[in-house]
Amino acid sequence: MPAYKAPLRDMLYVLYELMDGESVTSLPGFEDFSRDTIEAVLGEAAKLCEEVLQPINRSGDEEGCAFENGVVRTPNGFKHAYDAFRDGGWTGIACDPAFGGQGLPATVDTLVVEMICSANLSFGMYPGLSHGAYVALHAYGSDALKETFLPKLVDGTWSGTMCLTEPQCGTDLGLLRTRAVPNDDGSYKITGTKIFISAGEHDLTENIIHLVLARLPDAPKGVKGVSLFLVPKFLVKPDGSPGARNGVACGSIEHKMGIKASSTCVMNFDEAQGFLIGAPHKGMQAMFTMMNTERLAVGVQGLGLAEASYQGAVAYARERLQGRSLSGAKYPDKPADPLVVHPDIRRMLLTQRAYIEGSRALAIWAAKNLDLAKRHPDPAERAKAEDFVAVITPVVKALMTDLGFEATNLGMQVFGGHGYIRENGMEQFVRDARIAQIYEGANGVQALDLVGRKMPAHAGRFLRSFFHPVSDHIAAKKADPALAEFIGPLEKAFIRLQQATTFIAQRGMARPDEAGAAASDYLRLFGLTALAYLWAQMAENSLPKAEEDPFYRAKVGTARFFMERLLPQTGGLLQAISSGARTTMAFEEAAF
Amino acid sequence: MPAYKAPLRDMLYVLYELMDGESVTSLPGFEDFSRDTIEAVLGEAAKLCEEVLQPINRSGDEEGCAFENGVVRTPNGFKHAYDAFRDGGWTGIACDPAFGGQGLPATVDTLVVEMICSANLSFGMYPGLSHGAYVALHAYGSDALKETFLPKLVDGTWSGTMCLTEPQCGTDLGLLRTRAVPNDDGSYKITGTKIFISAGEHDLTENIIHLVLARLPDAPKGVKGVSLFLVPKFLVKPDGSPGARNGVACGSIEHKMGIKASSTCVMNFDEAQGFLIGAPHKGMQAMFTMMNTERLAVGVQGLGLAEASYQGAVAYARERLQGRSLSGAKYPDKPADPLVVHPDIRRMLLTQRAYIEGSRALAIWAAKNLDLAKRHPDPAERAKAEDFVAVITPVVKALMTDLGFEATNLGMQVFGGHGYIRENGMEQFVRDARIAQIYEGANGVQALDLVGRKMPAHAGRFLRSFFHPVSDHIAAKKADPALAEFIGPLEKAFIRLQQATTFIAQRGMARPDEAGAAASDYLRLFGLTALAYLWAQMAENSLPKAEEDPFYRAKVGTARFFMERLLPQTGGLLQAISSGARTTMAFEEAAF
Repeated sequence: MPAYKAPLRDMLYVLYELMDGESVTSLPGFEDFSRDTIEAVLGEAAKLCEEVLQPINRSGDEEGCAFENGVVRTPNGFKHAYDAFRDGGWTGIACDPAFGGQGLPATVDTLVVEMICSANLSFGMYPGLSHGAYVALHAYGSDALKETFLPKLVDGTWSGTMCLTEPQCGTDLGLLRTRAVPNDDGSYKITGTKIFISAGEHDLTENIIHLVLARLPDAPKGVKGVSLFLVPKFLVKPDGSPGARNGVACGSIEHKMGIKASSTCVMNFDEAQGFLIGAPHKGMQAMFTMMNTERLAVGVQGLGLAEASYQGAVAYARERLQGRSLSGAKYPDKPADPLVVHPDIRRMLLTQRAYIEGSRALAIWAAKNLDLAKRHPDPAERAKAEDFVAVITPVVKALMTDLGFEATNLGMQVFGGHGYIRENGMEQFVRDARIAQIYEGANGVQALDLVGRKMPAHAGRFLRSFFHPVSDHIAAKKADPALAEFIGPLEKAFIRLQQATTFIAQRGMARPDEAGAAASDYLRLFGLTALAYLWAQMAENSLPKAEEDPFYRAKVGTARFFMERLLPQTGGLLQAISSGARTTMAFEEAAF
Repeated sequence: MPAYKAPLRDMLYVLYELMDGESVTSLPGFEDFSRDTIEAVLGEAAKLCEEVLQPINRSGDEEGCAFENGVVRTPNGFKHAYDAFRDGGWTGIACDPAFGGQGLPATVDTLVVEMICSANLSFGMYPGLSHGAYVALHAYGSDALKETFLPKLVDGTWSGTMCLTEPQCGTDLGLLRTRAVPNDDGSYKITGTKIFISAGEHDLTENIIHLVLARLPDAPKGVKGVSLFLVPKFLVKPDGSPGARNGVACGSIEHKMGIKASSTCVMNFDEAQGFLIGAPHKGMQAMFTMMNTERLAVGVQGLGLAEASYQGAVAYARERLQGRSLSGAKYPDKPADPLVVHPDIRRMLLTQRAYIEGSRALAIWAAKNLDLAKRHPDPAERAKAEDFVAVITPVVKALMTDLGFEATNLGMQVFGGHGYIRENGMEQFVRDARIAQIYEGANGVQALDLVGRKMPAHAGRFLRSFFHPVSDHIAAKKADPALAEFIGPLEKAFIRLQQATTFIAQRGMARPDEAGAAASDYLRLFGLTALAYLWAQMAENSLPKAEEDPFYRAKVGTARFFMERLLPQTGGLLQAISSGARTTMAFEEAAF
């Protein structure tokens, strides 16, 4: 398993030099978070990830979770690591101080999440799911429920889950069958089977709080008849401590391609006592509140794994001697040159790097807008930020997990055959990264969300929250010859994105299949354009310092590589989109 | 694990309707292979693959190989399957009748190999490696060695390996250290450690014949001092039966991402008795003879796994009900529509299909030229075919394994979360496919072979063996309005390929890093253009029959999808190539 060092230098660069972190920490409620404080938090998180979580990543993959008689045992060291994680207060860093949280900005939380994912994604699933449950409960729970459950979710004594999927329904939650029958005391009896429940059962916390989608007896058909319930593993006694076991049990765990140390459970609810969260039949709303936060976090999973893979690949490319540079030996005193001299190895490393640093900037841009949407004193600014979050969320989720999978595969390829054996840890990143393209809404569903919901919403208002700053930026910088090598390609990509948008908007209105057939290509085109916009800014603010500081020189070099070698993909995407849905939809169903 | 049905209809279409199989079977030595015979062979192979090999594919993956005290145990059922495989004569179908083989054309063998890879790649590794050893021994071994070893390799009583890689050397075989010291009797003592040896030790055959690269005492440095030796696990008694154990033993087996039922061994040679194959210091030549055959076979591995994944994905897309068609319910009587109505699902299935059927045509085109190179009575025709094989081999290997990996991932994505759990078998195809991009020369090495060796060779003569037929085809068909939708995109891609070729040829001459930096993008551009050429022909010969026969209608539909939705990638590839090596090579080594 490659060593992992948190890329703190680049994280601080993105936060303060690219995204004007001070504008976030000056928002009401964030006054305590000076740059010093945030650097200290990130430094401590780095230490925990490097020293506690990363060392049990590969052993956790080899060992996996064990299931016996309804009990799930996490791999060796996970309980110990979780205790350290909880004792350090990491379960609550992004939570409401009213319930014991530290209330850190989403921007900072996002960087911490990236480190956790780099170090040990399987581990990160446990507090990650708790946070999802926290978000939904915090937004929609009654005061009584919040007082009983939030403090323990925030301090990590208890953990949480989201129970959505059933055997017959994944994406299409309208098909769900789990039933909720009212009891006399205002609670409900929940009965049904949920599958693919991450952290559904484990040995890390004294209680597990399930948020469960189910149907009330009078529920309308489809997604409009879905309600959200809180179902604790152990019912809570009046003194707040765990009491009798509730009617929910883990039936089995899945054997998966990756994230093997994260338990993925079949959960059977048999007249379990549950408590309604929010209004009856409004479960989807609460679910989406949680999902939107989680989708950003899942995008960051792709980024975190890509970073870990990159670090491994670079170390190997420097150390492994094989062949000679095509332009003559670079290390004639050694038996061969290191891999890093070879252009095709450099292509792979630079591709990883350009995707990683671009994705990090994209994630923090999205997170900053989450902070603005929540904290900005001006309602107009809050609304603007919300629009941007709405449109960028599916892009962050799908693009960053797709790029994360590509990047982890490139890292593995740098290792050659040594990347395919488990010992070196590079193939685990690939297996772990693969799930992020699927869960929390498969990437095709994200693409449909972008073209089908976000694009048409409010006559394109969400879209404009992205298009306007990009277009303003191009207009402002276009005349500067020093920036031409960055602004030129950005403008080209942006024009393609606008053309694709017009095409889809016009065609898709009358024939929704046209939007559906274009969706995945469109999301990638959108995402690459967003990265180009961020890379143009990173190049611009790095150029003046590039001569004296290798950090900024590398930024400029990576920006050039992105513009010249990766961004040209956008041409093919526009062309594919512009061909319309005909070839996709005309194919006879029986002929597949 | 999805069921597998060999795509015999499409295989026969490619063989007889696209590649004029009669022109192969009319070559000298192939007279016995009537269409009836070949159909019978393919039918029997299909039966074996569907009924014997496929049922132990997933269990083999779960169980893996076991290593204890130098002995490797293959998973349950493998010995039984191997016996059936051997008894059916499948180990020798493409071998010389002089040694007991059946001498089938490479075209037919390639189709059989595809089926084996679809059904059980891990199993296929055992006879696959034997065949590599057979090829090298047949081409370069002395008559005595051939008489002793070939018949048993051909009838499958014994198996073979290729022992190339060592801990310190993979791609760069010049670094190899295994030593060969002459004995008085003309044999050699071989000492050294080889790693990643597929089928190095197992329980399927009574003897294992290792072909080992090693250095003689007087060997020049680097790859020019490498010789090839035959080292049997058991020395052979005068009566031809296995005798004393030789000084070679398996030290351990690797734990890998995939192909877990294929043993990957560390092999320790300790003064093992070996026999020189070919001339001293000419081992690389023999090795490349074997490698070229194997590279085609590895390309076909990508194809075979893609086909298996496609079949699984189609079955699931028909059966899984989720959501409603964007254009209104297609199956209103069911609780939801099947996945196959959704445009993004269709995009994934059609992408798989277009890559699979295009790759199958490409593989058979390459194999046909292998047959022509070997059997055509006219030396000029043989030379032409050899040129084509030289240039297309790295393309088949790298493109088809890259597309195979993409396609298996798409198949898994169609399954959503159900694709990520091992139970359904879809993720195994992904893990198994991943190795094919690495072994037998990583795909980056294939790309360098294409631009660095094949492109400049004989002033472009190899390249012309591909460029001329494509250019002639475009010229001949361009005026036909019925074909415009296929020839137009083909021509566009071909012009891009020519531009990229000129660019690399001009720049790369003086600065080899320019060729190196462009190599991977160039190979993909080349490969996609080759697929476009084949798809244009498939569309053309299918169009007249499309109205009445759904098989041909699907061909035309897939051709359209390929041209409109996939081929546009070539634009971005040309643009990336044309940007040159600057951004790749200027990046400071220390800054990675």
